[in-house]
Amino acid sequence: MKKSSAPAQRTAIYPGSFDPVTNGHLDIIGRAVRLFDRVIVAVATESGKTPLFTLEERKALVAESVKRWRTVEVDSFNGLLVDYVSSKGAGAVVRGLRAVSDFEYEFQMALMNRNLDKTIETIFLMPKDTYVFLSSRLVKEIARLGGDVSPFVPPTVARELRGKTGK
Amino acid sequence: MKKSSAPAQRTAIYPGSFDPVTNGHLDIIGRAVRLFDRVIVAVATESGKTPLFTLEERKALVAESVKRWRTVEVDSFNGLLVDYVSSKGAGAVVRGLRAVSDFEYEFQMALMNRNLDKTIETIFLMPKDTYVFLSSRLVKEIARLGGDVSPFVPPTVARELRGKTGK
Amino acid sequence: MKKSSAPAQRTAIYPGSFDPVTNGHLDIIGRAVRLFDRVIVAVATESGKTPLFTLEERKALVAESVKRWRTVEVDSFNGLLVDYVSSKGAGAVVRGLRAVSDFEYEFQMALMNRNLDKTIETIFLMPKDTYVFLSSRLVKEIARLGGDVSPFVPPTVARELRGKTGK
Amino acid sequence: MKKSSAPAQRTAIYPGSFDPVTNGHLDIIGRAVRLFDRVIVAVATESGKTPLFTLEERKALVAESVKRWRTVEVDSFNGLLVDYVSSKGAGAVVRGLRAVSDFEYEFQMALMNRNLDKTIETIFLMPKDTYVFLSSRLVKEIARLGGDVSPFVPPTVARELRGKTGK
Amino acid sequence: MKKSSAPAQRTAIYPGSFDPVTNGHLDIIGRAVRLFDRVIVAVATESGKTPLFTLEERKALVAESVKRWRTVEVDSFNGLLVDYVSSKGAGAVVRGLRAVSDFEYEFQMALMNRNLDKTIETIFLMPKDTYVFLSSRLVKEIARLGGDVSPFVPPTVARELRGKTGK
Amino acid sequence: MKKSSAPAQRTAIYPGSFDPVTNGHLDIIGRAVRLFDRVIVAVATESGKTPLFTLEERKALVAESVKRWRTVEVDSFNGLLVDYVSSKGAGAVVRGLRAVSDFEYEFQMALMNRNLDKTIETIFLMPKDTYVFLSSRLVKEIARLGGDVSPFVPPTVARELRGKTGK
Repeated sequence: MKKSSAPAQRTAIYPGSFDPVTNGHLDIIGRAVRLFDRVIVAVATESGKTPLFTLEERKALVAESVKRWRTVEVDSFNGLLVDYVSSKGAGAVVRGLRAVSDFEYEFQMALMNRNLDKTIETIFLMPKDTYVFLSSRLVKEIARLGGDVSPFVPPTVARELRGKTGK
Repeated sequence: MKKSSAPAQRTAIYPGSFDPVTNGHLDIIGRAVRLFDRVIVAVATESGKTPLFTLEERKALVAESVKRWRTVEVDSFNGLLVDYVSSKGAGAVVRGLRAVSDFEYEFQMALMNRNLDKTIETIFLMPKDTYVFLSSRLVKEIARLGGDVSPFVPPTVARELRGKTGK
Repeated sequence: MKKSSAPAQRTAIYPGSFDPVTNGHLDIIGRAVRLFDRVIVAVATESGKTPLFTLEERKALVAESVKRWRTVEVDSFNGLLVDYVSSKGAGAVVRGLRAVSDFEYEFQMALMNRNLDKTIETIFLMPKDTYVFLSSRLVKEIARLGGDVSPFVPPTVARELRGKTGK
Repeated sequence: MKKSSAPAQRTAIYPGSFDPVTNGHLDIIGRAVRLFDRVIVAVATESGKTPLFTLEERKALVAESVKRWRTVEVDSFNGLLVDYVSSKGAGAVVRGLRAVSDFEYEFQMALMNRNLDKTIETIFLMPKDTYVFLSSRLVKEIARLGGDVSPFVPPTVARELRGKTGK
Repeated sequence: MKKSSAPAQRTAIYPGSFDPVTNGHLDIIGRAVRLFDRVIVAVATESGKTPLFTLEERKALVAESVKRWRTVEVDSFNGLLVDYVSSKGAGAVVRGLRAVSDFEYEFQMALMNRNLDKTIETIFLMPKDTYVFLSSRLVKEIARLGGDVSPFVPPTVARELRGKTGK
Repeated sequence: MKKSSAPAQRTAIYPGSFDPVTNGHLDIIGRAVRLFDRVIVAVATESGKTPLFTLEERKALVAESVKRWRTVEVDSFNGLLVDYVSSKGAGAVVRGLRAVSDFEYEFQMALMNRNLDKTIETIFLMPKDTYVFLSSRLVKEIARLGGDVSPFVPPTVARELRGKTGK
């Protein structure tokens, strides 16, 4: 009988606003799938700014985009991330790192989360190099200005963005 | 019967010079232990500069320091890291990130390694905040100048450093 | 007969909010003038935040400040920058780089623009070292607090800022 | 008879929003106390965003927290920082540096202030390593989400934060 | 008759060690070709460290790799870069920017060069995103360790690297 | 009777290699003079690399350059910086910050020094913006290549550099 000393770590949470999900997010999810038994994409109910998509829309777009992986679930959370992670029996939080500015912000958040609950580990993954420039904010900006976002997001998201921005 | 889609990922390689191993390295190893079934600390046979400790000494100091974890092994490697990782059936390389300068160098290495073998994922972990300043290079410098390195390295390493530097 | 392989590159676009134009912007324009046959300062019609000066005011202040260079034109644009650049037959976008934070943001924008139109090159120039601290945002803040902005902007802009802030 | 060439420098100003004061701020104040005869914590009357605590509340919370140091005073200011510093006969502004992003912003502000009044020196201090992640913004966010902020702020501040956020 | 106000700027110098030239260098050269009438790739005769390839070998490998562009020349230089640039009647130095660490070093060099000769402008270009990780140093390291460098350098360079490293 | 709570802090140590002293160093010393009663410029006896100037030469060049300030002394030290600082009854170490890369290195050193002796505070000052690019290494490189270093160093240093490099 194999006794694993790290069972709780086998579930990872990938938290974010996903307003909307991009190919960069999906790239990170694909990497997490290979590292963990179960990956929960956790859409934040509330964040600082007003989202373009409602919580239900954001969850539906993620769900549609992750159908290819049977070990990925989509959920939403509010309150402290560490409380949510703990409630799911997960031991790891996954974050993508694109640039130095990401790094500093993520570092700060991860240290704060470790202060709040030291059993939770934040692990950082690097997206595909061609996604280094990609962010939900930029994608929304391009859609708003009438540009073609199809190289940056799944087809359903591209269609919904056109609907939202009326272009 | 549970079918895992990610068995190869359950072994992680933690590569480095470990000249010598510090409390910062051990902190990262402890975090990796909670995320993986098996962690191989892989001491690089050759690196750009002449090490203070021989390969055998560096391996012995790591081995002595990781006895507390039964899922950690110590090994050495030469040649390309990706070839070594692949030969061990591992799917992940673990690296600690302390600062922006680390981040850029590690990013570059991880992207290069991904180019050489895209089945291998580099995951980044953050050390305890009090180890952010710690590096083997600084520890050796302090020992050379006659300072007390006991807060920064395991006791055996502190003793060996005193022997090497004659202080 | 000389056949140039790069005629379209001879016009450069220098885009921005210019709310208001500063001596730092003018320094970059002066450098671009020496590199290109024609430089179009393109004032963005809309940006994320509400500008202090109207589009017409911003254009007028730039126009007043660039009279010394006969190869500089002032224009405005809305929509995607790459579409505007292409419509002017320009091949280059000019941006100033002051600091690491600039660098990351500009890098991301330039990569995104290259994804949208790969015939357009972004070139980065470095302002005079004494302008490294200068930004439209800081200048407005100083004016609002009653400070003297005359070392940082052309005389007309300083006067208009006093008018806007009532100090 | 001792003639000091630097009497004006013996008073330092530590400016900020202090919305609310954190243990990280207090750590910096403690360091400044050892370097200067007199430290004035200067709470900014107005800043870009709406504060959670009123000016009077912010001043009272700082005053309560610095009672341990007899050379620390609490004050508020509006207008240009350099004018305030000069009006107090102080020659130094103290700022804490936690990360690269701080560094760039602080550098820019310090250069601008030096342009406005070159007799005023900005000196940067480094907080305790365990406070590197700490910011008023993060503390407010945690309180809003129902988390325990007592490790990050003085007891009175923790109590007031619970009152403000109703948790 | 066309009177250009910027004739000297039409030649650009792309200086470096090119030990050896990589696909990243060629990407930057291709971008410079579209911006300038004439691009001189200037191989530094001496640099801080001992090169793997001799000056003649480095020049020959560059020359072989740039044959596709008829406006590119290969040359070598010693002494101050600004003196060389001036002697060629060039007004611009081209440099590639890959990362923050590049940025700071290049910024420092460009400011120093501007101090030595203010008529020379340094312009920064961004390589293709997939070359962000690429450096001559990394390529030599991979070749030395027996890895396949053919995705990173032109075929001739890959062959020569195998010859040099005996793998 | 004035009772100061911070007498030991009134002496500051400015440590470095000073190989050779530059106008950037002198700018920082001038700022420290206004903040402290006594500033000791402490030339490191040994550092990692072989210096161009001997210890005696480096001390003499600093001494010659700081004659304008009567509160500045020149000394040398070996061993741990914190031990030297403590032996002089000083409470502060002064360092100049030019760029992000400086910042990270200096941060790491300051945290390590604080670990070795927590009564010693490192304070960071910002040089004049026009010295941001300046380093002893660059100055030596320019002298070696036959460039004019007189804008960057005191006249005596410029003369000695010409002697050392034979140009």
